[in-house]
Amino acid sequence: MTEPTEFVQSLDRGLAVIRAFNADNPELTLSDVARATGLNRASARRFLHTLVELGYVRTDGRLFALRPKVLELGYAYLSSLSLPEVAMPHLEQLVEKVHESSSVSVLDGDEVVYVARVPTRRIMRVSIAVGTRFPAYATSMGRVLLAGQTDEWLDGYFANASLSRITANTIVDAKRLRAELRRVRRDGYALVDQELEEGLRSIAAPIRDGDGRVMAAINISAHASRATLESMRENLLPPLLETAAAIEEDLRATR
Amino acid sequence: MTEPTEFVQSLDRGLAVIRAFNADNPELTLSDVARATGLNRASARRFLHTLVELGYVRTDGRLFALRPKVLELGYAYLSSLSLPEVAMPHLEQLVEKVHESSSVSVLDGDEVVYVARVPTRRIMRVSIAVGTRFPAYATSMGRVLLAGQTDEWLDGYFANASLSRITANTIVDAKRLRAELRRVRRDGYALVDQELEEGLRSIAAPIRDGDGRVMAAINISAHASRATLESMRENLLPPLLETAAAIEEDLRATR
Repeated sequence: MTEPTEFVQSLDRGLAVIRAFNADNPELTLSDVARATGLNRASARRFLHTLVELGYVRTDGRLFALRPKVLELGYAYLSSLSLPEVAMPHLEQLVEKVHESSSVSVLDGDEVVYVARVPTRRIMRVSIAVGTRFPAYATSMGRVLLAGQTDEWLDGYFANASLSRITANTIVDAKRLRAELRRVRRDGYALVDQELEEGLRSIAAPIRDGDGRVMAAINISAHASRATLESMRENLLPPLLETAAAIEEDLRATR
Repeated sequence: MTEPTEFVQSLDRGLAVIRAFNADNPELTLSDVARATGLNRASARRFLHTLVELGYVRTDGRLFALRPKVLELGYAYLSSLSLPEVAMPHLEQLVEKVHESSSVSVLDGDEVVYVARVPTRRIMRVSIAVGTRFPAYATSMGRVLLAGQTDEWLDGYFANASLSRITANTIVDAKRLRAELRRVRRDGYALVDQELEEGLRSIAAPIRDGDGRVMAAINISAHASRATLESMRENLLPPLLETAAAIEEDLRATR
């Protein structure tokens, strides 16, 4: 479909300028933006001034920062999905019941992206917002989403995957991971024990569309000090599966 | 700063293509996108295919839809603010205490934009997500943010403002609104009674930066059936002001 000649390089570069801003670098000079994007100063200036004119960036003449209008872009995506809206009330009920945080995510490339989240009210909560990305292989939702792909897709995934150790527990052996994905497929859930973060356990289940394809995953995460693997299987898995089923039913009703 | 000759039209158009997608139109054909953006078909095709190649849009050959990568753009903004992160635990404690939803927003042009929100667990909750925009004049947070502007800024605002009736209660008279803003400035809070939506009341207070400038607003919203104006002033205002002060203190500590 896409012919290389049709590629609009200016759009690519402009989006890269937006992505140059982040938590560590909320305010950037022209030189900072040029460095972060690989653009020369003249180009960086053109893109920044265009974004200022369009209302996406503000400047005091020296420092540049994003403006809230940028949220409209991410919001365009979220509002185009019925999933977050449908899932939220169910996540809230689930969190109310189990007193642990719950999220819904989708697969994008080899990463999971959070599209809905309800944190628990505990002070020691895991702080993750919608839009956050994690490598799929080390998370329970990622395992569920990977397990939902075809074997052909997984062949391609493993041909390219670089599984790196994030904690002492992370499964980095492709063969072991594939065996784990088969288990997830068979059992219908994934349980991850401190593979993404020390002290964090997470259990996830698939959310399927009307054709039975895994379209998203839902999880409950808990601190290891509060939940053993056994207690998660026993106490958290049943309400998690019920919630996934309720979301699937609502999604079918909104079609 | 910005010279008209420097404007990168391709970036403007590409961002317009992203914004063409929304809740009512999550999947668009090439013709739909051309119509929504005013681009001709050849241009719309170039932008769509560029976005496909960059991973922001997916297509089955006929229909186009946004992909989760678009969230990175909005996420760049949110993560560049310390405000949402600092405010969230305080919002959660406030919601825990008053059992009503609470949000934080900033002013962008003549609109408020939600940057943090904690919904209450009630079923009949108001469903508003981060990134949502409302006209400032008809919301309690908007009134607080407008009241925080200089008189000169407000002169400009009122010169351009089109105050339209959203509910029977909406203040649409500029003189009355300006008097209300003076009251908000004097009293340090805004109370809005069903001016944005029938059955919805909201009370808001300013969040000030280290120089005393109003940088954001925090509110509590409640259904009119559950809260009288008096009970909101009596029961919700004190914890709201306490929460605003706690956020201000934390913001100063993170500087």
